[in-house]
Amino acid sequence: MKLYFVLIITVCTVFFSKAQQRQFTLVIHGGAGTILKSNMSAEKEAAYRAALEKSLKAGYKILENGGKAIDAVEAAIMVLEDDPHFNAGKGAVFTNEGKNEMDAAIMDGNTLKAGAVASVTTIKNPITAARAIMDRSEHVLMVGKGAEKFAALQGCTIVDPTYFFTKERWEDLLKAKHEDSLKQNKLLYQPSLLKQPDNHDYKYGTVGAVALDSYGNLAAGTSTGGMTNKKYGRVGDSPIIGAGTYANNATCAISGTGWGEYFIRLVMAKSISDRMELAGMSLQDAANEMIMKKLPALGGDGGLIGIDKKGNIAMPFCTEGMYRGYIKSNGEMQIEIYKE
Amino acid sequence: MKLYFVLIITVCTVFFSKAQQRQFTLVIHGGAGTILKSNMSAEKEAAYRAALEKSLKAGYKILENGGKAIDAVEAAIMVLEDDPHFNAGKGAVFTNEGKNEMDAAIMDGNTLKAGAVASVTTIKNPITAARAIMDRSEHVLMVGKGAEKFAALQGCTIVDPTYFFTKERWEDLLKAKHEDSLKQNKLLYQPSLLKQPDNHDYKYGTVGAVALDSYGNLAAGTSTGGMTNKKYGRVGDSPIIGAGTYANNATCAISGTGWGEYFIRLVMAKSISDRMELAGMSLQDAANEMIMKKLPALGGDGGLIGIDKKGNIAMPFCTEGMYRGYIKSNGEMQIEIYKE
Repeated sequence: MKLYFVLIITVCTVFFSKAQQRQFTLVIHGGAGTILKSNMSAEKEAAYRAALEKSLKAGYKILENGGKAIDAVEAAIMVLEDDPHFNAGKGAVFTNEGKNEMDAAIMDGNTLKAGAVASVTTIKNPITAARAIMDRSEHVLMVGKGAEKFAALQGCTIVDPTYFFTKERWEDLLKAKHEDSLKQNKLLYQPSLLKQPDNHDYKYGTVGAVALDSYGNLAAGTSTGGMTNKKYGRVGDSPIIGAGTYANNATCAISGTGWGEYFIRLVMAKSISDRMELAGMSLQDAANEMIMKKLPALGGDGGLIGIDKKGNIAMPFCTEGMYRGYIKSNGEMQIEIYKE
Repeated sequence: MKLYFVLIITVCTVFFSKAQQRQFTLVIHGGAGTILKSNMSAEKEAAYRAALEKSLKAGYKILENGGKAIDAVEAAIMVLEDDPHFNAGKGAVFTNEGKNEMDAAIMDGNTLKAGAVASVTTIKNPITAARAIMDRSEHVLMVGKGAEKFAALQGCTIVDPTYFFTKERWEDLLKAKHEDSLKQNKLLYQPSLLKQPDNHDYKYGTVGAVALDSYGNLAAGTSTGGMTNKKYGRVGDSPIIGAGTYANNATCAISGTGWGEYFIRLVMAKSISDRMELAGMSLQDAANEMIMKKLPALGGDGGLIGIDKKGNIAMPFCTEGMYRGYIKSNGEMQIEIYKE
């Protein structure tokens, strides 16, 4: 009798711990900005939704098969990098010189290991280069030609820079340059030599993913083409660990999108993690405080996605919209674009 | 009688508030590493001490004349950049390709504005380029040729890359390459293609400054040549806001020096600021926890200088030594190199 009792307890324990172990969640974003339903055709919206769904499913497949958060994050971001709708990889915006200079970062919350690239022009999927740096170098950040050389040695797919040409992004550049020249004329006698276009949308479109896997590991990744018409080797927050990208199993995983300079100055992602670790705040409260209060107070805007160790999700943004979505281990999937 | 009393109180209040206002402090470092008295000649030590004193006095002069913390930080760092003893500016170490690729950052704790450069090769004083980006652009971080172009437009002194040649650093490179080739032979069949020299000293020598001015403003700056024999466009923590450099009037100003990758992964400087802001810790306790516990626990080492809004100083390091010093408004100056 006693033996049966012990056996039942053991089976139940194993069953429930297995069930609990298998819970996982993936969250993605495709950038925040002035995204209004009134400016969006049904066709275009369907294309965005399809791309986000494809990304979520790519990550889900990995997590469902017992894969790790870091692999799901990389896979989800690769899908968005390959889609011309987003400002990362194939759809990267153009610099003032007519180039596509991309940045990306990835971080493993289990080991606090991280990898990042900035100002790369020939790596088809910059997130894979960030991953290679994390896994197969002693470094965290590599920039420019050096980063490209390392990525090539590590087997990342290298493409001719013309791969990144898209008609829509090129037209964005021409428009931004035109607006810039009008503005420069007005500002000729002002001390600042470097003003960026007023149109906020030139600053956005970054993609990112955060995940919790069935082993309790968190991971985060971000990839971007930066700012349309950017000059002078400008790099934003995406490849900066603690600003646009951060993961720590003890707290949360974060990927940001927005006006990068403000995310850097606020050390956005680490500020959220520290609010959870040091002030006992929930992910939602910490993310809301930073995105809805601190960010606009400093003059910036944007949004982010976050997930904590219990699987709680936060997706705050103080712009008109943010391409975003999540998928859970039970198959529940949600994709949103506008404010609720 | 009553009038006299009011007058005396007013005079005293003005006098004491003036006296209090005029309190300022500057702290500098010239890098942490395996710095042992047994390896140092009296002549070499005197040269280091003289350079550190010159740097402190340059900053003091500004603060004494009612100048701002950000100006004192920039001036103090320029002195160290111009001195060949330190791994920044003139004394920058060589990359694997025999170049000098420098990084720097500066941050104003009053406005949370920041500027940074990475992988620049022709700017005589990288800290001046970081300052120009902070003051005269809408950006925070610029890298490579683009950053050099912007710096030139802003009037920063541009030099031929041969300016940065020093015999000692060149010999360091040859030695590092030799050690590297021996190691690569051993590691030929291991997955990592990129191991850096075991000699920790190849990773150190960064310079930095933090200051509190008589208006209560904090500022921080850091400048470095990075890691001897570095490859693939590697960038460390110095130009990363929140990692090697951070300032916030509400908490502290921090400049780090050490194994940069670990400072990035720990988001070192912001972690200290957040411990003060969110957990009510003192600067000393927060800095000690991060440098003496969290950093070695992850496998890294190094040190930092910090100052809080009350003028309290912290200079912890978990290496054998750190070139460091401070000067206060009353003229009290201290310069140290080894462990106490």
